[in-house]
Amino acid sequence: MSHEELRSEHERQSAKYAQLKTEKLTLDLTRGKPSPEQLDLSQALLALPGAKYRDGNGLDCRNYGGLAGLPELRAIFGELLGIPTENLLAGNNASLEIMHDVIVFALLHGTPDSARPWSQEPKIKFLCPSPGYDRHFAITESYGIEMIPVPMRHDGPDVALIARLVAEDPQIKGMWAVPTYSNPTGAVYSEEVVRTLASMPTAAPDFRLIWDNAYAVHPLVEEFEAPLDVLGMAAAAGHPNRPLVFASTSKITFAGAGVSFVGGSTQNLAWYQQHLGKKSIGPDKINQLRHLMFFQDADGVRAHMAKHREILAPKFALVLQILEDRLGASKVASWTEPKGGYFISLDVVEGTAKRVIGLAKEAGIALTAAGSAFPYGTDPEDKNIRLAPSFPSTDDLAKAMDGVATCVLLAATEKSLEQA
Amino acid sequence: MSHEELRSEHERQSAKYAQLKTEKLTLDLTRGKPSPEQLDLSQALLALPGAKYRDGNGLDCRNYGGLAGLPELRAIFGELLGIPTENLLAGNNASLEIMHDVIVFALLHGTPDSARPWSQEPKIKFLCPSPGYDRHFAITESYGIEMIPVPMRHDGPDVALIARLVAEDPQIKGMWAVPTYSNPTGAVYSEEVVRTLASMPTAAPDFRLIWDNAYAVHPLVEEFEAPLDVLGMAAAAGHPNRPLVFASTSKITFAGAGVSFVGGSTQNLAWYQQHLGKKSIGPDKINQLRHLMFFQDADGVRAHMAKHREILAPKFALVLQILEDRLGASKVASWTEPKGGYFISLDVVEGTAKRVIGLAKEAGIALTAAGSAFPYGTDPEDKNIRLAPSFPSTDDLAKAMDGVATCVLLAATEKSLEQA
Repeated sequence: MSHEELRSEHERQSAKYAQLKTEKLTLDLTRGKPSPEQLDLSQALLALPGAKYRDGNGLDCRNYGGLAGLPELRAIFGELLGIPTENLLAGNNASLEIMHDVIVFALLHGTPDSARPWSQEPKIKFLCPSPGYDRHFAITESYGIEMIPVPMRHDGPDVALIARLVAEDPQIKGMWAVPTYSNPTGAVYSEEVVRTLASMPTAAPDFRLIWDNAYAVHPLVEEFEAPLDVLGMAAAAGHPNRPLVFASTSKITFAGAGVSFVGGSTQNLAWYQQHLGKKSIGPDKINQLRHLMFFQDADGVRAHMAKHREILAPKFALVLQILEDRLGASKVASWTEPKGGYFISLDVVEGTAKRVIGLAKEAGIALTAAGSAFPYGTDPEDKNIRLAPSFPSTDDLAKAMDGVATCVLLAATEKSLEQA
Repeated sequence: MSHEELRSEHERQSAKYAQLKTEKLTLDLTRGKPSPEQLDLSQALLALPGAKYRDGNGLDCRNYGGLAGLPELRAIFGELLGIPTENLLAGNNASLEIMHDVIVFALLHGTPDSARPWSQEPKIKFLCPSPGYDRHFAITESYGIEMIPVPMRHDGPDVALIARLVAEDPQIKGMWAVPTYSNPTGAVYSEEVVRTLASMPTAAPDFRLIWDNAYAVHPLVEEFEAPLDVLGMAAAAGHPNRPLVFASTSKITFAGAGVSFVGGSTQNLAWYQQHLGKKSIGPDKINQLRHLMFFQDADGVRAHMAKHREILAPKFALVLQILEDRLGASKVASWTEPKGGYFISLDVVEGTAKRVIGLAKEAGIALTAAGSAFPYGTDPEDKNIRLAPSFPSTDDLAKAMDGVATCVLLAATEKSLEQA
């Protein structure tokens, strides 16, 4: 593009942006929240369990006890996650809470494979595939665990780099992972990547994979991803305690009123329950019974998620269409085309992500804060923007994305003029 | 009693015990669990919230957010606990979990008044009014916090001793307290005791009262105890951050499927939420809405608890009657006569509690493990037994208590013969 062309493009986008501001939008693409229509699909849950209060084993779910959660519900999600029922516990409303607690227990007690509590080590570190999930990084940051970014690729993180780092550095105690439809790129870890992570030698004997399989049954296409048996692979490689697998129904039924799950080796689950038992007499079994009656079986979950897909897939298609229509020709941006999950990861011209997000905010379009998908909130290239299409209506989404595209182009032309 | 009389009494009780064993009982007085009849009183909860999913402010309770919990439910329990709504948060199903987390956050981050995280102090200690609640002591023990027993009296713990200890020792960072119908003695802290605890000078600037008001609305008599305003008293004395107040509906609606509460100063709640926000996006608001619809208001809770009392009071009366009938004359035991709560504390002949519990177990009557109401599970006088009358049916309770009385008398005569 000649300087003249650039100037005229900048003027065109400036005019578009001025027009956008006059619309006085208040739109929000920040978080992966289910839409009201999606929540309506679980409306029947609100009147369950009705008069029933016993599980299939005759347990009175209204009373104390049952730290491991209802076996029948664990069996359903065990089937979906590829984990035997006895290696999967059902908990309260947030898998994030269990991930947090696992790290707290490791800090204050040490894991079954630790020489001492992690808090007594001079320094510990976690690997953070980036872009990744901001709430993961917030936990490690809050406890002073040094975070090492690792690049994400289409088939998972850079495992060659990871294998080299963990082989050398015993201070690296763990890694965050969203193996299926990763937040925010949508990448699905390949079998090879999973096998490397499960089997690679690590300098730390108590290295942990915090395996957040949050989107295991959340495809945007008809086929469900077959679960990769990270627990089995790790056990076969002699590292049975390495992975801890997490999931929840927050993005299946009600966000924040669902059931969480944690899977692991027999020794890991005994360790977790030993410490869990100090803070809880048991999870909310009535809510587990409610979910059990609602789903009936694993096919019930799959059928339910197919209805989710009918709502979500058109929203993702719309976002991709607008990105292609507005940004496809100019090559100023690239984006992921996820087959599942809740996010699209948009890369704009280097050094302009903050500017794009600022411009959008001024025009009434809230985007996730710049850098939030990176450790310490710092995107080294200032180019990544996480788009969350799930919550807004189709109309709002179209308006918001058209506005975002204008901001991307305006920021890109600004940058080019600066550099010219 | 002469040696002859003692021998013949021992023979009489031995015969009774032999008879007891032939009955092959399997009865359980170990834990403060609600009975099925009591749980039935909350049966309507199981079909709530029905089709409704918005609170009075229009919030969609099916979606993420609302870390503090529903304001309308916080207002109801604020009224019952004597705490302003803005100083009370509503959480998930277990106040024990919040107590645990408060201690974890203090260990790993320090409180707003701490010079450094508690885990970085060479040693920290907690005061433990004893007999007390075993699950409290299990938390402090698990994190290596040294526990100092303090004697319980009819109006609360020995505050003269407490005031002396905390004034001198900056390593004493906190105290466990069950102020209303204390577990297991049933003692209600007097206003003077509460005022002393709230206002006494402490060597540690970050001393905390873990104020577990688990039985605030659980009288066995018609009158409810007026809530003592420990937060107000502490604030007036210049120690606003000293108390953290806890409550839950586990013994009001469903045990383990209720709602928990934590009250505190503005600064304490901001501190707690700052760290809570790392592990949770919010509590189960649907369950809070369910409870809100079920109770309607504070009088709804009081009316509900009056129905609890109709079930519980006769059970407590029965236990006290059997204790009086079987043990009243011989003076080999003493016991508390609580006006509320879930337990009766029985003191048998010194050095025989373990023996009594062993004899009972052999006869098929499970009692709480000896010493469990004391730090480290050690009752220094081996005399205290916690009785939990809430769960068994009246028939079972009568059989169990008659058996316990036999075991108490048999152990007492054994002991006397040994010493003779």
